[in-house]
Amino acid sequence: MDGDIKKLSSGELRSLIRSGKWNSPTAGLALGYAQANVYILPSRYAFDFFLFAQRNPKPCPILDVLEPGTYETNFLAPNSDIRSDVPQYNVFRKGKLAEKKEDIKDIWQDDFVTFFLGCSFTFEEALIRSQIPVRHIEEGKNVPMYITNIRCRDGGIFNGPLIVTMRPIPADKIVMAAQITARYPFVHGAPVHIGSPKEIGIKDLSRPDFGDAVEVRSGETPIFWACGVTPQEAILNARPDICISHAPGHMFVSDKLNEEFATS
Amino acid sequence: MDGDIKKLSSGELRSLIRSGKWNSPTAGLALGYAQANVYILPSRYAFDFFLFAQRNPKPCPILDVLEPGTYETNFLAPNSDIRSDVPQYNVFRKGKLAEKKEDIKDIWQDDFVTFFLGCSFTFEEALIRSQIPVRHIEEGKNVPMYITNIRCRDGGIFNGPLIVTMRPIPADKIVMAAQITARYPFVHGAPVHIGSPKEIGIKDLSRPDFGDAVEVRSGETPIFWACGVTPQEAILNARPDICISHAPGHMFVSDKLNEEFATS
Repeated sequence: MDGDIKKLSSGELRSLIRSGKWNSPTAGLALGYAQANVYILPSRYAFDFFLFAQRNPKPCPILDVLEPGTYETNFLAPNSDIRSDVPQYNVFRKGKLAEKKEDIKDIWQDDFVTFFLGCSFTFEEALIRSQIPVRHIEEGKNVPMYITNIRCRDGGIFNGPLIVTMRPIPADKIVMAAQITARYPFVHGAPVHIGSPKEIGIKDLSRPDFGDAVEVRSGETPIFWACGVTPQEAILNARPDICISHAPGHMFVSDKLNEEFATS
Repeated sequence: MDGDIKKLSSGELRSLIRSGKWNSPTAGLALGYAQANVYILPSRYAFDFFLFAQRNPKPCPILDVLEPGTYETNFLAPNSDIRSDVPQYNVFRKGKLAEKKEDIKDIWQDDFVTFFLGCSFTFEEALIRSQIPVRHIEEGKNVPMYITNIRCRDGGIFNGPLIVTMRPIPADKIVMAAQITARYPFVHGAPVHIGSPKEIGIKDLSRPDFGDAVEVRSGETPIFWACGVTPQEAILNARPDICISHAPGHMFVSDKLNEEFATS
C-alpha cells in the first residue's frame, strides 16, 4: 500500500481520504503539490482571525479563506470537501482538545469559516532538492519547535508569541537555504533568525517546546523559520467556543503545485 | 510652498493634511515613503471585502486592516488618524458618490473598518530610478486605465473585472521593467500582461476607460499592471450603504519606506 499511495495524484489521495481509507499523515504524499494547515472557526471569530493571519504572514501565510458555510475551495482544489478531505481533525472547544475525528460532517455549522494556511512541507522539499540537509527528516523525527520572545502582531482577540522551527544548516549552505526558502513566502518564506537562539529567547535548543530535539553538528548554525503552530497557539489562547483544525501532520492536500506559489 | 512641501517627512505631511492646510494630491511628496489607497466600510461588509482583497492580491495588495472603530494604524504610521489624515475623501452611498470631504470625523461610525491597499506610486518611483520612462508622468497626465476581460475572483458580495494601468516600455527595457515591479508585490507587483491589448479584452488603447490616453511610440510595447481602481469598482458594484475612500491621487502617506515592502 505504501508504495502505491505515493503514486497517487492529489485528487486521488483526497478521494481515498474522503472514503475513510487513509487517516495517516500526509508527509511525502502527492509530492510537488502544496499541502495546507486548516483552521475552521464560526464566523463571529473569522474577521479577527483573518486580521491575525494577515498581520503575521510569516507564521500564517494565507492560501485561501472560504465564505461562511462553504466547504469547497475552488481555488486550491475544485470538488474538494473540507468536511471530509483531511485525514484527521482535532476539535477544540474553549481552547481544549475535545475530540479527534476523521470526518466533521456531523458537527458542521452553516456559519463555519475555513482558513487554509501554507505548510513548510513545501520548502523542505525544495531544500532537499538542493541537497541541503533537513536534520529531522534524516533522523526520522518531528521538527523541533520553540516559543520565542517575539510577539506576533495582535489581531482582534487573537494574540501570542511567534513560534519557530529550527533546522541546523552547514555554514557553507546558510545563504542558499535562506535564498531557497525566501522563494516560498506562502509557506513561511525566508528565515526569521539565523544564529544565536538566545537572541530570540530560546534558552536550550535541546529542549524544544514542541516536536523533537535534533543534533546540531559542529560547523552547523541553527536557522529558525516561522512555524504554522503559531496560529494554533493564538487560537487556543483566545478560547473560542469551537475551532476545528487538521491534526498535526495530517494536512489538506491541494491541487496547486508548490511552484505555483514560488516567487521569482 | 511647493518647494517646501516636498521636503516634509511623512509625519510632517500628515500633520499638515490633518490641520486642513494640504488638500491636494500626494504624488511626488514624502518621496520614498509608501502611500496607500484607503477604503472604509461598515463591519458587516468587512469580511467580504477582506476576502475579495486577499483573493485578488495583484489589484488589491493589503498593507493593513484595522479593527472595527479603530482609526490609527500602528503598523503603517503610529499616531496617525485615518479620519483626518487623507487630503480628500470620497463618500459613496449605495454605490454613488454622495459627497467630498476633507475630514470624516463627523460621519465616523464605531463599526467602520479601514483597509489600506498598496499604491503604484511606489513602483513608478523605482522605474524612474532605473531610467525606465513612465509616459503619463512625462506627459503630465493621469495614467491610462482599462477594464479587462479578466474576472477577479469573487469575495462574498464583491466582484468585478480586473482593471489595469498601461505604460508603454521600449523593447530593450521590458524585462527590466517586469523585474523591477516584481520586487514590489505589495504595490501590484509584476505585470499581468505584456503585449497585445486584445488578449485581455482591450479594443482601443487610445480610449482608456479611466485616466488619459498616452502616446505609444514606435518600438514600444504596452505593458499592463493590475490597478487599484479594481477594488473601487467592485465596491461600487456591490452598492454598500456607505463606503469612504481616498479621492483619486489623494493618498494616505505612511511612515513605511517603499523598500520595506520590497522582496529580494
